[in-house]
Amino acid sequence: MKATLLTVGDELLIGQVVDTNSAWIGQALYDIGIQVARIESLPDRHLEIRAGLERASEHSDLVLMTGGLGPTKDDITKQVLCDFMKCGMVFSDSTYNRIQRLFAKRNIKLTDAHRDQCMMPEKAHLLINQMGTAPGMWFEYEDTIFVSMPGVPHEMKYLMTHEVLPRLTASSTQVLVKRTVRTVGIPESSLAELVEPILDQHQVGIAYLPSRGQVRIRLYKNGLLREQIQNEVDTAVVAVVAAIGEPFYGYDDDTLEYAVGQLLKEKGLQLATAESCTGGYLSHQITSVAGSSSYFKGGVIAYANEVKSEHLGVAPDLIASHGAVSTQVTEAMVEGLLASIPADLGIAISGIAGPGGGTEEKPVGTVCITVGALGDTHSEQILIGKNRLLNIQYAATYALNMLRKFLLEH
Amino acid sequence: MKATLLTVGDELLIGQVVDTNSAWIGQALYDIGIQVARIESLPDRHLEIRAGLERASEHSDLVLMTGGLGPTKDDITKQVLCDFMKCGMVFSDSTYNRIQRLFAKRNIKLTDAHRDQCMMPEKAHLLINQMGTAPGMWFEYEDTIFVSMPGVPHEMKYLMTHEVLPRLTASSTQVLVKRTVRTVGIPESSLAELVEPILDQHQVGIAYLPSRGQVRIRLYKNGLLREQIQNEVDTAVVAVVAAIGEPFYGYDDDTLEYAVGQLLKEKGLQLATAESCTGGYLSHQITSVAGSSSYFKGGVIAYANEVKSEHLGVAPDLIASHGAVSTQVTEAMVEGLLASIPADLGIAISGIAGPGGGTEEKPVGTVCITVGALGDTHSEQILIGKNRLLNIQYAATYALNMLRKFLLEH
Repeated sequence: MKATLLTVGDELLIGQVVDTNSAWIGQALYDIGIQVARIESLPDRHLEIRAGLERASEHSDLVLMTGGLGPTKDDITKQVLCDFMKCGMVFSDSTYNRIQRLFAKRNIKLTDAHRDQCMMPEKAHLLINQMGTAPGMWFEYEDTIFVSMPGVPHEMKYLMTHEVLPRLTASSTQVLVKRTVRTVGIPESSLAELVEPILDQHQVGIAYLPSRGQVRIRLYKNGLLREQIQNEVDTAVVAVVAAIGEPFYGYDDDTLEYAVGQLLKEKGLQLATAESCTGGYLSHQITSVAGSSSYFKGGVIAYANEVKSEHLGVAPDLIASHGAVSTQVTEAMVEGLLASIPADLGIAISGIAGPGGGTEEKPVGTVCITVGALGDTHSEQILIGKNRLLNIQYAATYALNMLRKFLLEH
Repeated sequence: MKATLLTVGDELLIGQVVDTNSAWIGQALYDIGIQVARIESLPDRHLEIRAGLERASEHSDLVLMTGGLGPTKDDITKQVLCDFMKCGMVFSDSTYNRIQRLFAKRNIKLTDAHRDQCMMPEKAHLLINQMGTAPGMWFEYEDTIFVSMPGVPHEMKYLMTHEVLPRLTASSTQVLVKRTVRTVGIPESSLAELVEPILDQHQVGIAYLPSRGQVRIRLYKNGLLREQIQNEVDTAVVAVVAAIGEPFYGYDDDTLEYAVGQLLKEKGLQLATAESCTGGYLSHQITSVAGSSSYFKGGVIAYANEVKSEHLGVAPDLIASHGAVSTQVTEAMVEGLLASIPADLGIAISGIAGPGGGTEEKPVGTVCITVGALGDTHSEQILIGKNRLLNIQYAATYALNMLRKFLLEH
């Protein structure tokens, strides 16, 4: 079954609203083995929506629409559907009664606009929407299924979950199996060189999704026999993970900070942080994981040099002779940190996030990082880029990966 | 000028990635008076992308594409563009040299995949991408402009801002003037009650954009005479800001952390932080502002109670008697903080981010915050919600707003 999504609304085209509905629907359909072939966002104009319906019906068995069902006059999806399917509108008593009951509870008086909203296309099978006033609509027209839903995300999700997906599952036989392999510290092109030769022996699809020093690899296959497909994907995943080696850190929705947290838990170790240029971002990443308090003690944000000296015991002389951005200073930060916070491992970061503060010798994007235990540390100096926020994010990822490697080696 | 956006990538269709690029581009084009007529998301398949290009070129003067420019074999946008425009590929020395310089800095070896990536459509005018390896491409083919950009958001934004928008602005005549008024600590409905009566006297459009304790109000108008339109919008903005009062904190892209930073700079005051449940997020927000080192000294992430005692001098007895989540403890955290870090003002946050740790008396989402100077503090206890990440973000916004109000009153 091949699906097209149509999202209707001027607000999508002028960028006032991000279309999160399509991703949600795409994933929900994907999980029951239906592939979305195309997504189209259309303005609130009759001719454009009608043209979108025609394009969609040509190449799809299933067309899911969201938006354009509200009570205001820019919402015209129903009229376009009637025009497209050559049918009239009828008054829906059941919808009117539902709205009446709903509004009585909230002490709202029904207006003419609400009566108009109860006019429904003759050919529609109505889907009850417990989250709002506009019902969903299900049509079978020529050889295509059309479904129209409100654009409000929680109303759409309710209708998909309770009405649309159950109906589609009943008629779908295709199965899709997917697995995501997560990597860090290796560029997409180098990963491809490791993975592509392996993949020749496996009949699975692959996609690379790079983002800020990490690359996710998605392996997938669809067909009729779940068990067989699951087996093929699993076998390919094992081979791919073996080929990647150290840069592999987790599957599916596992984040790097989650993977590092799991390693710390397994080894029963406690962590603390000392951040300068990342200004709290690394600690935020670590503590965004639920349950992180079982292995994260806390840290010091040593933005000013006084704080490096006062809270981390870094000698002002050391800063004066090597500069605040130096591995000598980040090493001293880890030592001072672990002397004052009862943790086993520390991470220290000092760098120039930019846009100011760069020099010839240490340009913007220079970052020094130390990870390790008292008397057993590992340090690196890297050069990232010119964008402040990306420098902060990339430095935190790099530091987490250094800690991950330290944990794997010890 | 009528534009179509084409976003390419299987990850969009299966819902692994939300298409935020289209909204960003839609808004950027809208701002220079270009209307997006349609957005289409397409899979990584030659025929489908080609069909998308054909549909787009039929009804648009401008086609902006994102995605499909990476080094792996699922990235095929360039081949499709060559096929569509009937041209070959040529090796781009300038691109190869740029990649070589970039990778030398990071100690990465160039592979054959990188050489392949330097093959470019003959008909393309290359747009230099300072944020990544794949350049943008500008084509004028028949009567339509085609632009191809990488799908990585910060690379796309760089190319749009520095290369594409300046070229398009030069050729546009409609003018759109808009101004955003930013507010914090007041719900959308209360804002509307303050603003709507004012707006009856002004012929400008309005949109409310709520997000995590803040509401942005956008006022806009378009037409042909820039000066007149600018005047009307400016007058409306002055009236709206006066009606809003204290919750107003800034314009356009000013963030709350930026506004607080400006207040600190004006008053010549230094800030420090003591975070428990927000785990570094508040400090990250503050230090995401360029130049924040001139007023932010640093802080302590006191996740474990030992750190509250060791680095902030909070008496274990106080924690035992009132609980770590109490205004007594956050007050002590500010006092200890300002005793050890040479700053004028401190913020302390302690709370239960969840999902675990809640009690009958202090459920998940309970957060205590203290702001102020030594001997002059203000504390509040609030109850947010059940989502860990939203609790962290909302608590940081609430704390920044408390500091803002403290600064305005002193």
